[in-house]
Amino acid sequence: MRPTFTVQASDGAARAGRLVTAHGVVETPAFMPVGTYGTVKAMTPEELEGLGAQIILGNTFHLMLRPGAAIIAAHGGLHRFMHWQHPILTDSGGFQVFSLKSLRRITEEGVRFRSPLDGREVRLTPEDSMDVQLALRSDIAMALDDCTEHPATESEARESMERSVRWAARSHAHYYRGDAPDAPGGLFGIVQGGMHAALRLASLEALLRLDWPGLAVGGLAVGESEEQRLGVLESLVPHMPAGRPRYLMGVGRPQDIVAAVMRGIDLFDCVMPTRHARNGHLFTSTGVMNIRNSAYQDDLSPLDAACDCYTCRNYSRAYLRHLDRCNEMLGSRLNTIHNLHFYMGLMRSLRAAIAAGDLAAWARGFLTGRRAAGAVA
Amino acid sequence: MRPTFTVQASDGAARAGRLVTAHGVVETPAFMPVGTYGTVKAMTPEELEGLGAQIILGNTFHLMLRPGAAIIAAHGGLHRFMHWQHPILTDSGGFQVFSLKSLRRITEEGVRFRSPLDGREVRLTPEDSMDVQLALRSDIAMALDDCTEHPATESEARESMERSVRWAARSHAHYYRGDAPDAPGGLFGIVQGGMHAALRLASLEALLRLDWPGLAVGGLAVGESEEQRLGVLESLVPHMPAGRPRYLMGVGRPQDIVAAVMRGIDLFDCVMPTRHARNGHLFTSTGVMNIRNSAYQDDLSPLDAACDCYTCRNYSRAYLRHLDRCNEMLGSRLNTIHNLHFYMGLMRSLRAAIAAGDLAAWARGFLTGRRAAGAVA
Repeated sequence: MRPTFTVQASDGAARAGRLVTAHGVVETPAFMPVGTYGTVKAMTPEELEGLGAQIILGNTFHLMLRPGAAIIAAHGGLHRFMHWQHPILTDSGGFQVFSLKSLRRITEEGVRFRSPLDGREVRLTPEDSMDVQLALRSDIAMALDDCTEHPATESEARESMERSVRWAARSHAHYYRGDAPDAPGGLFGIVQGGMHAALRLASLEALLRLDWPGLAVGGLAVGESEEQRLGVLESLVPHMPAGRPRYLMGVGRPQDIVAAVMRGIDLFDCVMPTRHARNGHLFTSTGVMNIRNSAYQDDLSPLDAACDCYTCRNYSRAYLRHLDRCNEMLGSRLNTIHNLHFYMGLMRSLRAAIAAGDLAAWARGFLTGRRAAGAVA
Repeated sequence: MRPTFTVQASDGAARAGRLVTAHGVVETPAFMPVGTYGTVKAMTPEELEGLGAQIILGNTFHLMLRPGAAIIAAHGGLHRFMHWQHPILTDSGGFQVFSLKSLRRITEEGVRFRSPLDGREVRLTPEDSMDVQLALRSDIAMALDDCTEHPATESEARESMERSVRWAARSHAHYYRGDAPDAPGGLFGIVQGGMHAALRLASLEALLRLDWPGLAVGGLAVGESEEQRLGVLESLVPHMPAGRPRYLMGVGRPQDIVAAVMRGIDLFDCVMPTRHARNGHLFTSTGVMNIRNSAYQDDLSPLDAACDCYTCRNYSRAYLRHLDRCNEMLGSRLNTIHNLHFYMGLMRSLRAAIAAGDLAAWARGFLTGRRAAGAVA
């Protein structure tokens, strides 16, 4: 079924809503933990559920290379393959392919690249990406876009954006061909245009000639300044359809999510909480702490006394530092539980603040608390 | 409190019993998952509980080097440090030190070795080992023994065994000095003597001049043949006190455990189920399978259709192979759950067969089923 979206409350530009998919409901603003290879690293699906995750992201690029779409399709799709019963959004694979730089060649047809796994040439066209995402039976598929480099001149950004628009149309045509009654989900378009406000609006206008159940903002979280990113959001988001979910791809730090929610964004994904966890960087109510710091060697207190996650309820900083030093998997697990709990709690707080109509005050308190402690993620 | 032991049923030489410690009851025959660094690799304590583990083993050698006994003592002991509420047995550290070969020097005082972590010289005397194990507050501590090389001549084995007896007396004197009312547990002695039956009996006789709540058979699982190992057990175990638990250190494969239980052994530990899991070797009702085999690439069936563990209920062989190939932690977790479930189920079956008085028939069925499938662990 095509996802549907209802705004249930708003506060300034921010909205709290419900995104309904074949695999259930997502309350927005929502954060999607990233499950690159059909697993959110170190977590079981039941643990993710317990943490409050309502939707996760799968990576088309990785899954098409390993284990390949056919094996996942034989299981009945990615949900059954990985034993996750709730919604899944898959990206198009474009972002990862473009990151390969010297290993890929872009033409109007699509992208050809050397697999980083075995060097064989792989093709990824808009149609290929749709075929993979349909095989995965994701609830939300993403159009294949041409990810604009950063920085890009106006003419580079325009050329890239226009190709993205053409690829979006091909993605749309292929995804909805025949419009089979058992279509697993819906396809989101992606607005490109670099840091150029006029190109962003042109991209949006061109995309809106087709019907999308949701739209994403791509091409951010690529090294731009915070000012640039917020500038793009402030000039673009007010023109995006109010009745459809808006997804800011690849963002980000807690403070980035707060700022984007205040500008009308509903969906987020980022590897930060899970990757940081494995590297010993832990989000707390007073900022990010590095558990590898020798100061924690004999620290009997929990990571964050204000946190009620499984990790903070049962283990000391000294124990977590010990596990990290010994490269024990349990350390990655406990750290991941804590960081995802932090992100899920952040999203719950944002939804509650929007519903209560006091988002601005809540955000001031959140950002001040973190800044006071010298927090940077 | 000192552990107590009651035999509740017997069948031939095999016994089913209850070992009671300050942290609860262990039903025997029991298998102890190995938690080297204060974690059974990849598992939470709650998962171990759910799998039916009633006691785990901690490694004194590893924990004294990282994080050090003082940090664990500051937490109130190993149970609190690692959040495991049930019994813990710690080894003496001797076995690991002796494995260092060229890095260690043995004298009557004890062992001095170069830490494999940072090269600094570390001393491990019987008194040191007791101090560490008391700091860890283990329910069952092990005397420091001199681990006899294999193979060893009669005179080499005698010299080593006699040193073990002297170290056992020093361990005993130091562990029970003052006999503080809050003593955390009890100390087990270790029978040595290599493959020489007369030395084994001499070791046992010498140890029995002191009071031990349980006794272990050391110096096996060192490369001897199955015939040699069973020969030692058959000549030694009938002379061990019937009312005290008997622990065969470091054994082993499922079929080895069955054979030893039939000869009167009550306690086991081995890294095999957990290490094999991380290497993709999985115990099933028809033998060991290697999930890395490409035959499983598109195999939609569970690891073992006869198994009702979390892994077999929810995931396919294809998914497990995929996780292993991608080096995903969840793969190690799911494999470890399966292998420990297998071992815990094996011990439950052994206890039930002893209680029912049909151990011999059960063992024949178990071994025949595995041999028929060409099983080797």
